[in-house]
Amino acid sequence: MRIDVAFTPSEIDDSRVRDRIIVVVDVLRASTTITTALNNGAREVIPVLDVETALKMRTNLSAELTLLCGERNGRIIEGFDLGNSPSEYVSERITGKVLVFSTTNGTLAAAKARGSREMVIGSFVNLSRVVEYLSGRGDGDATILCSGKQNTFSLEDAVCAGMIIDRLCELKPPVLTDGARAAQGLYKRFGRSLLSLLNSCDHGKYLASIGFARDLESCAAVDSVPILPVLVDNTVLKMLQPQPPTGGGAADEERTGVKSSA
Amino acid sequence: MRIDVAFTPSEIDDSRVRDRIIVVVDVLRASTTITTALNNGAREVIPVLDVETALKMRTNLSAELTLLCGERNGRIIEGFDLGNSPSEYVSERITGKVLVFSTTNGTLAAAKARGSREMVIGSFVNLSRVVEYLSGRGDGDATILCSGKQNTFSLEDAVCAGMIIDRLCELKPPVLTDGARAAQGLYKRFGRSLLSLLNSCDHGKYLASIGFARDLESCAAVDSVPILPVLVDNTVLKMLQPQPPTGGGAADEERTGVKSSA
Repeated sequence: MRIDVAFTPSEIDDSRVRDRIIVVVDVLRASTTITTALNNGAREVIPVLDVETALKMRTNLSAELTLLCGERNGRIIEGFDLGNSPSEYVSERITGKVLVFSTTNGTLAAAKARGSREMVIGSFVNLSRVVEYLSGRGDGDATILCSGKQNTFSLEDAVCAGMIIDRLCELKPPVLTDGARAAQGLYKRFGRSLLSLLNSCDHGKYLASIGFARDLESCAAVDSVPILPVLVDNTVLKMLQPQPPTGGGAADEERTGVKSSA
Repeated sequence: MRIDVAFTPSEIDDSRVRDRIIVVVDVLRASTTITTALNNGAREVIPVLDVETALKMRTNLSAELTLLCGERNGRIIEGFDLGNSPSEYVSERITGKVLVFSTTNGTLAAAKARGSREMVIGSFVNLSRVVEYLSGRGDGDATILCSGKQNTFSLEDAVCAGMIIDRLCELKPPVLTDGARAAQGLYKRFGRSLLSLLNSCDHGKYLASIGFARDLESCAAVDSVPILPVLVDNTVLKMLQPQPPTGGGAADEERTGVKSSA
């Protein structure tokens, strides 16, 4: 496998996603929140770019089933049901619901990845699931797409990308591009304490300043939400755990979460 | 001073350059080549985005005075006088000439920086001049703009940006954004041997494969070309060395190389 890292969505165009596996990373906080939501019982997450589209979707979908979720500048969007803090996505609130989800950076990254062969969502909280998934994907090429912040570099996303790559190198060493080598180097330099990293990076400081310091702890908790969100037809679903060889049926069910060539 | 790094031109828009000092870095090879050319006697360098514009300029300027210079995919452009190897830019060939210069990545970065307060060109070969310049610019904010490769990340440009920042931190510690912290971290990780770095990075390997391995040595030679190229009205000139206080006139002449607020 050859692995690349794009540090911002602006680096990506169709030619860089086609036929590739894309891992979208938005540690603070969309990747973490979507992963948490699916783990806590949300039926599916529909990423949308703008507020108007989200509002329209609510009128088209069952109002009882649907929640509008997301943020602008870190805060819940006016008229929406939930913001972008993983702490809001508790089972009581979201079980069985369709979440229409719009954030400043993460949903842009997801939109850029639409032409890819497969797209999954990665963060510190599901890191091992992402590594396991990539190590099982044979010779396909992969790009880790960091969401960044308004098309600029975010250290926490780069370090998360680097941690995925570092773990993958232990299992099944991929060929690394410049971007992938850099991300791995950044993980080795800044990854010793992920909570310190999130407390010191630009977006972490901003979130703490508007009252979300506790979110940084959840977002730094490696493997605390061990599921893999996968994009299927513009909707993010939880990919089922592969079963041991005796449970073939369930393994097949899992593969419906992947567009092609399992 | 607050210092930021953009790892690709695609991260940059007008709002990110306005009122800022921009340092354009394209280690392999436009920054190195332009610096070398101005040091070896070229009168000025006019960066242009495309071949057609370069050809038109030759008809408008004195043919005797003008050389068309640049590359596509590392190789000299058909019909041009010089490519993008610093070794071509010897005094005999370029003294007194106007170089119309078009490269795949560096000239795009320079075009993106046009709305800035000041723009200079940095590389390993003039690193101390860049650091000295930035440390003398008071409280102005600066962005180091890495040219990258076709809008993707290049490790050598990031490490050069990080080396500039690391040296600046010794003189006059700036406030660092995420991008600047990352670049400094990459310098500390990959900057021990710059020649090894250039031999192992994606674009360095490509250049070696098409016969330019020797260029990597010139491009890695820190402070071997101790001048500072500066953009004035879409033309890159050599900024004169500041003189000691007794030589006030010459110091004034230097400042004509800067658009404003010296």
